[in-house]
Amino acid sequence: MATWAVGARGLRGLLLDVSGVLYDSGGEEGLGSAIAGSVQAVRRIKQSGLKLRFCTNETQATRAKFVQKLQQLGFDVSEKEVIAPAPAACRILQERGLRPYLLVHDALAPEFDSVDKSNPNCVVLGDAANNFSYENLNKAFQVLIGLETPILFSLGKGRYYKETDGLKLDVGVYMKALEYACDIEAEVVGKPSKAFFLSALADMDVEPHEALMIGDDIVNDVGGAQQCGIGALLVRTGKFRPCDEQHPEVKADGYVTNLAEAVDILLEQLQR
Amino acid sequence: MATWAVGARGLRGLLLDVSGVLYDSGGEEGLGSAIAGSVQAVRRIKQSGLKLRFCTNETQATRAKFVQKLQQLGFDVSEKEVIAPAPAACRILQERGLRPYLLVHDALAPEFDSVDKSNPNCVVLGDAANNFSYENLNKAFQVLIGLETPILFSLGKGRYYKETDGLKLDVGVYMKALEYACDIEAEVVGKPSKAFFLSALADMDVEPHEALMIGDDIVNDVGGAQQCGIGALLVRTGKFRPCDEQHPEVKADGYVTNLAEAVDILLEQLQR
Repeated sequence: MATWAVGARGLRGLLLDVSGVLYDSGGEEGLGSAIAGSVQAVRRIKQSGLKLRFCTNETQATRAKFVQKLQQLGFDVSEKEVIAPAPAACRILQERGLRPYLLVHDALAPEFDSVDKSNPNCVVLGDAANNFSYENLNKAFQVLIGLETPILFSLGKGRYYKETDGLKLDVGVYMKALEYACDIEAEVVGKPSKAFFLSALADMDVEPHEALMIGDDIVNDVGGAQQCGIGALLVRTGKFRPCDEQHPEVKADGYVTNLAEAVDILLEQLQR
Repeated sequence: MATWAVGARGLRGLLLDVSGVLYDSGGEEGLGSAIAGSVQAVRRIKQSGLKLRFCTNETQATRAKFVQKLQQLGFDVSEKEVIAPAPAACRILQERGLRPYLLVHDALAPEFDSVDKSNPNCVVLGDAANNFSYENLNKAFQVLIGLETPILFSLGKGRYYKETDGLKLDVGVYMKALEYACDIEAEVVGKPSKAFFLSALADMDVEPHEALMIGDDIVNDVGGAQQCGIGALLVRTGKFRPCDEQHPEVKADGYVTNLAEAVDILLEQLQR
């Protein structure tokens, strides 16, 4: 039996990454495709009585649209179960009285409808995909370089993700680009920031040692969760690459074929 | 008298950065505009008998077109006096039997006409400006991530440069983006690489202590030259910003209003 599973008996809450664990994004209609066994795995988690949150860095759609898409793919998920960076960023902007220049996906923009964007004094970067043109990145740069203290928020810091037709550059790459251009450090909202994981735990009323994160990103999912004292499994789906199992800094508590296998092993332990 | 000028009497060769020292790029016709006094300053250097090379990281045009543009602006400059990254990169590719995927400006591409670009096993990044689309950067990323040992050449590593309508992101920003995406380090061809400065000195048959670099980039011009034992002045034109005079790591040997002032002071010293 996998050694990580031994500790599973004290488990009360699960955190699941979404893209690469539940489904692969992309495809002609933008719907993506569910990963084999994941729809049923989510259902089994819910039936088990474990608490569950979907902890995503997805910023190509509002949370409402994102949930709609997952439901279309067959997943039992509701909006209040999804912890996502954009709503967290909106709270931070309002708390600190900041007015963003947005470089985000068109489909995410409505999430910021209630935020004052006039005369911007910071930049918010999401996974903007084709909106990452030279012109748009240059506009974001010009806002930052014109500020006495440039403030850059990045909704996640992923390197790349997997779509049905291959690996695609993620927001972290453009965060690094602007950090270098302006000689600054971005504030990351989303995984792997501690605040993000802790807000998901608080929402479930679960302690770190009672929770387990399952993701396909060795640094942002696994490393991020472990920094909060949360155990973490790496799935071999999504953007997983074999070299992730030899990552120089992060070792997962366990490696599983996919979400379905993780849930099989977990539920077997819990039912003993 | 400026203290840096005291050493000028042993001077035999000058290295001049071009964009931001001779002219500001951009504008409606893409010709840019000469910086006041620079055309005459170049002429006076040549009349003085000092050796001279133009040491540029410009990669938005072939060397031939670049020289043509400078001549149109009134500068006395010939192709053999210009040290530029693209010809240096072509030599390296041929020596090492590498076949590049090019992410460069359309106008630079002819410089690589003689290079085999089939089935690429490396990426060459130039200042591609509007060619830095999400799609193109993603293609470069997919080439790199598919290689067992990804090799990325960057033609310079500048953060930004000044065009007539404002600051623009330079190639270094996209180099950092791909470095982060693939967890690699790029090989820089051009300033501030030592090999680049030393090839310019060899071309003039001048020793480092007999040479002086004049540029508007505190890190790539001034820092790069100093690492080779070449003295270096920072001009307060081009992309110069007042905070450059308080750079935490690099101190120029002198700071001057513009090229014209530097040449005034230098020639006065040489004629004593």
